[in-house]
Amino acid sequence: MIKVGIIGATGYAGGELVRILAGHKDAQIVWYGSRSYIDREYADIYQNMFQIVEGSCLDDNMEALAEKADVIFTATPQGFCASMISGEMLGRTKVIDLSADFRIKDVPTYEKWYGIEHKSPQFVEEAVYGLCEVNREAVKSARLVANPGCYPTCSFLSVYPLAKEGMIDMSTLIIDAKSGTSGAGRGAKVDNLYCEVNENIKAYGVAGHRHTPEIEEQLGLAANEQVLLNFTPHLVPMNRGILVTAYASLKQNVTYEEVKAVYDKYYDGEKFVRVLKKDICPQTRWVEGSNYVDVNFKIDERTGRIIMMGAMDNLVKGAAGQAVQNMNLMFGLPEDEGLALVPLFP
Amino acid sequence: MIKVGIIGATGYAGGELVRILAGHKDAQIVWYGSRSYIDREYADIYQNMFQIVEGSCLDDNMEALAEKADVIFTATPQGFCASMISGEMLGRTKVIDLSADFRIKDVPTYEKWYGIEHKSPQFVEEAVYGLCEVNREAVKSARLVANPGCYPTCSFLSVYPLAKEGMIDMSTLIIDAKSGTSGAGRGAKVDNLYCEVNENIKAYGVAGHRHTPEIEEQLGLAANEQVLLNFTPHLVPMNRGILVTAYASLKQNVTYEEVKAVYDKYYDGEKFVRVLKKDICPQTRWVEGSNYVDVNFKIDERTGRIIMMGAMDNLVKGAAGQAVQNMNLMFGLPEDEGLALVPLFP
Amino acid sequence: MIKVGIIGATGYAGGELVRILAGHKDAQIVWYGSRSYIDREYADIYQNMFQIVEGSCLDDNMEALAEKADVIFTATPQGFCASMISGEMLGRTKVIDLSADFRIKDVPTYEKWYGIEHKSPQFVEEAVYGLCEVNREAVKSARLVANPGCYPTCSFLSVYPLAKEGMIDMSTLIIDAKSGTSGAGRGAKVDNLYCEVNENIKAYGVAGHRHTPEIEEQLGLAANEQVLLNFTPHLVPMNRGILVTAYASLKQNVTYEEVKAVYDKYYDGEKFVRVLKKDICPQTRWVEGSNYVDVNFKIDERTGRIIMMGAMDNLVKGAAGQAVQNMNLMFGLPEDEGLALVPLFP
Amino acid sequence: MIKVGIIGATGYAGGELVRILAGHKDAQIVWYGSRSYIDREYADIYQNMFQIVEGSCLDDNMEALAEKADVIFTATPQGFCASMISGEMLGRTKVIDLSADFRIKDVPTYEKWYGIEHKSPQFVEEAVYGLCEVNREAVKSARLVANPGCYPTCSFLSVYPLAKEGMIDMSTLIIDAKSGTSGAGRGAKVDNLYCEVNENIKAYGVAGHRHTPEIEEQLGLAANEQVLLNFTPHLVPMNRGILVTAYASLKQNVTYEEVKAVYDKYYDGEKFVRVLKKDICPQTRWVEGSNYVDVNFKIDERTGRIIMMGAMDNLVKGAAGQAVQNMNLMFGLPEDEGLALVPLFP
Repeated sequence: MIKVGIIGATGYAGGELVRILAGHKDAQIVWYGSRSYIDREYADIYQNMFQIVEGSCLDDNMEALAEKADVIFTATPQGFCASMISGEMLGRTKVIDLSADFRIKDVPTYEKWYGIEHKSPQFVEEAVYGLCEVNREAVKSARLVANPGCYPTCSFLSVYPLAKEGMIDMSTLIIDAKSGTSGAGRGAKVDNLYCEVNENIKAYGVAGHRHTPEIEEQLGLAANEQVLLNFTPHLVPMNRGILVTAYASLKQNVTYEEVKAVYDKYYDGEKFVRVLKKDICPQTRWVEGSNYVDVNFKIDERTGRIIMMGAMDNLVKGAAGQAVQNMNLMFGLPEDEGLALVPLFP
Repeated sequence: MIKVGIIGATGYAGGELVRILAGHKDAQIVWYGSRSYIDREYADIYQNMFQIVEGSCLDDNMEALAEKADVIFTATPQGFCASMISGEMLGRTKVIDLSADFRIKDVPTYEKWYGIEHKSPQFVEEAVYGLCEVNREAVKSARLVANPGCYPTCSFLSVYPLAKEGMIDMSTLIIDAKSGTSGAGRGAKVDNLYCEVNENIKAYGVAGHRHTPEIEEQLGLAANEQVLLNFTPHLVPMNRGILVTAYASLKQNVTYEEVKAVYDKYYDGEKFVRVLKKDICPQTRWVEGSNYVDVNFKIDERTGRIIMMGAMDNLVKGAAGQAVQNMNLMFGLPEDEGLALVPLFP
Repeated sequence: MIKVGIIGATGYAGGELVRILAGHKDAQIVWYGSRSYIDREYADIYQNMFQIVEGSCLDDNMEALAEKADVIFTATPQGFCASMISGEMLGRTKVIDLSADFRIKDVPTYEKWYGIEHKSPQFVEEAVYGLCEVNREAVKSARLVANPGCYPTCSFLSVYPLAKEGMIDMSTLIIDAKSGTSGAGRGAKVDNLYCEVNENIKAYGVAGHRHTPEIEEQLGLAANEQVLLNFTPHLVPMNRGILVTAYASLKQNVTYEEVKAVYDKYYDGEKFVRVLKKDICPQTRWVEGSNYVDVNFKIDERTGRIIMMGAMDNLVKGAAGQAVQNMNLMFGLPEDEGLALVPLFP
Repeated sequence: MIKVGIIGATGYAGGELVRILAGHKDAQIVWYGSRSYIDREYADIYQNMFQIVEGSCLDDNMEALAEKADVIFTATPQGFCASMISGEMLGRTKVIDLSADFRIKDVPTYEKWYGIEHKSPQFVEEAVYGLCEVNREAVKSARLVANPGCYPTCSFLSVYPLAKEGMIDMSTLIIDAKSGTSGAGRGAKVDNLYCEVNENIKAYGVAGHRHTPEIEEQLGLAANEQVLLNFTPHLVPMNRGILVTAYASLKQNVTYEEVKAVYDKYYDGEKFVRVLKKDICPQTRWVEGSNYVDVNFKIDERTGRIIMMGAMDNLVKGAAGQAVQNMNLMFGLPEDEGLALVPLFP
């Protein structure tokens, strides 16, 4: 039984870790870290866990936790994990960081986009970018995994096969993304009040969202060239889900079948990536509560562009589910252990 | 492996049966009955099931199905099951009817409220009202189970302990219920369009909703007296969930602890009924996607009344989950097999 | 041109005052009071008012404002208006208080339910309870109007004719109310975040909500007897709207026509109260953005009860619209000036 | 008093015409055409209009209507207006067609994208594309106005100044649009049921939506070159609102101030187009219920692209509001008569 500690257990991603791990037969949570709710029963905060989860919230003392846990999930604001981690800690326990601290290999880029100094640059190289579909082998032996961001996961997996195969002109890539509101976190802010989000859609972070360099770095690795792209996130009045609509010019004329074959080449054996049938557009409702990413594409012969689409639950494949998928790999368990979550509809 | 057939597999309750049974290790669906979508792949209709469920939709030939299935779920409009069922069929297969056909023991009452002739009154007495928490033993040996209605399940379980113990004046009972929109079904009606339901709340079926006699009959059996009550359902802009707020006069002064002890007496061993802590009101978000009913109460000394509350997912405990719970009992399986569904939040 | 000052102009009720007064041809806002946003342009906070409203936010100095304004609206937390008001101020300007400070004539009752000391009990008797349909003449000559609460307005108007005519047993009255989330205000609280409210319904303040004594006092005046009732509010995932479902025993058998005649007697000349046709249930969507209250009733012969229903926009007739209606009366304007707001659907 | 007839008065766009005209002091509706609800009182269908609108629904006999009305609004499916219109009719009455029949000047393009034969190509040239901000003078003298589509209105106005001034490379233009569900109409379809739309976002009509050629034609006229672009609409779980996010490469480096000056040049005198302040992104909540289009832009120096954004109420400026704006121009009234609608928030 893997002993799991969670720092940030009462945020939405933390809560989702608790939900998923409650159904994981080889893992046991030993630490519900939550600075805001110390000493309160966890199930008093997340009443869905009443009579399912026992235990009260503890502080965010990651060092003490490292002595108890086989693996620590940090579902914390950027900067926290980098400021706490140490070689000694990594000698004792594995760390899966759900924040951005170790996602970007280029430290100055991290520091510029996040506006903070990186406190542990010495671990950046070691950290494995935990997108299992791409870095599966590296994850298996990792001590420190940087769990990918929600937007980058969905954006990357929608575009990856064509970037990797060099079929699209990467300089024309535009990613227009839409997210449910749980992605904004559980902090008490006026902007995230029900009446502010409901009956509204807006773009935010236009030409400046922090997930941009992460997407660019990963797609750059795939395409083997430097990538600059436009990424525009939007806030949608729903709880969960990310939809990505990406546009790029095709380098040459291709048929549906040719492109389909490329997607299949990369995703045929992937349990959590579903390449939909022809002309079926991904929709967030079909993946809600599950670890699936649904992807598909449409060729527009008139403009010579291809529209790539992906849908995903931002809290599962975009956060907690992917983190558990990484944990499974790191501990030699079946990759889908605890993740056989059937999407909930309606 | 239990062979399961579903008639009405593409309605919301049918879809939920498919979702739950996809995670049930001792059951296998052999028939996706759907008159509207014959020959279409099931996962083309419910895309959440893509790569999870194989198989195409078949017709609603219950007789043919009875030769293949160990159990048939009828998630159909009222009248269908009663018009199809036969002694021969019940000799071959078990039937769990999610419609109202066999819920009400008094056939004239059924015919009056539903406005149709009952085609199989001869099976009404045999049919077991499948509220497991009350009729567990009878369900185990039943051939025909009448799966309770969504409103009746939540209403009954909220009020049951006090009715049974004679603590409330049943003639004063008023049940004000609120339901998400999946309860209205998947039929294409203007009234259920997004723009008609969103940003709106309304009462409907005031003083005439068909679930009224079902609630009255069951609470009458519990209280051992004839019960007439007011039941008012409301339509709420959300997908899932029923909330019941029930009011009754207490027969005499009681303390919180006394009432709590009564609830505990009936529900302590019940896995799917959670009696919440003092002053915590049930909320539908804490049970979404799960088979739980959360109940609690509040004594109002000023008026001498008690307010009883319950929250439930109408598609799970209010339909498909309870149906699977019944199936488990009928086949000697653990009652919660396939029902360890952790509520999804947010 | 009436000079209007608003204290609390950036809350939802304050914002609605600004919206309504923007279309009022005889009023002009001279003071946008908002402690949180001093010196910021009002239209920067409420972008809907961009290029419609000029002016920046000022503080909540009600004394200074009293020298500039013909009327002050206080859309502030309870206690504020009572702590600021003075005879000198009332000599200079009229005050319409949207808080609870002057609604309840019995000061100890106010202090008990609101848990604060009343700072200006000397003005309680003078204050007119601003329910125009009942106190029209008194409002016309008032210096200080207590604008009714949202729940009390809708509850009272739904029940009033039958209470006044003595047709219902007031001791059996139960009011089950449902409100959109704007009623919870614009404060940054976790409980009011989008993801906490969406896909959820809950009761709150059960047997203890502060609007209870206000409803009891007003219905007591109408019925000419002391009234104790159950009032249970619920939070609904929508922006605007209150729906009231009220239950009471009829004192004797009555027909639909008899009850309808009673409602018509009180509301026939009332522009903002619409008695719906037989069997049409009030719905919040039909009044959104308007000053209407839609009411109707249903007799349940089986139980001898009558179900009274009302629907209203909590920010308009439940707050800002009613406040402007009061202002119109106080200044001798047509009662519906600026209030010819057609409900917005969908 | 202008006598107005509406064909299609019980669809959402028709209903919005009724709402707006109810507050228009120089217009009077004489014909509520609705094939589905003939002889039923209009306010029985749209209960928000109870006691506001008198009159029952009539059929869709446009010829008979032409003898009674000064102007006819056809809020009907494509093909209807083209099949009914005649020179004789246009000699008697003005026609504002809210369908696509007369929007596209190139008839074969219309026939290809809409898949129907055009029944009145002889009126296509005469018809004025009713985007008042661009074709104001032509509208004033028009007998037949083609009211622009919802997506085209918002897309065009967001991009127009830069297209007109030749600042962007039109071959790189990508328009990613998001719409509330009222745009899908009031037809009873499973896809538009509450539970199918709620908690979901999806793209639809990818690379094939019928509004594409309309946008291309109008932007082509502005840019004075042929335009081919990608247009992708998405369905958002909200009632009203369209948000457009458009991407294009800048032809040369420009500053914020330079671009702002261009937007101001075209929109400074336009009452219904609001160019927002720097870095403020348009949001649909700020325009709900009003005739405003809010536009803004963001230069991304990293990629050399500009992101152009617009937000609008699809039923007002995207349909009924713009139609009334056109009517006002055609009858010599102030352009904003009846359109001083303050956006409703929350």
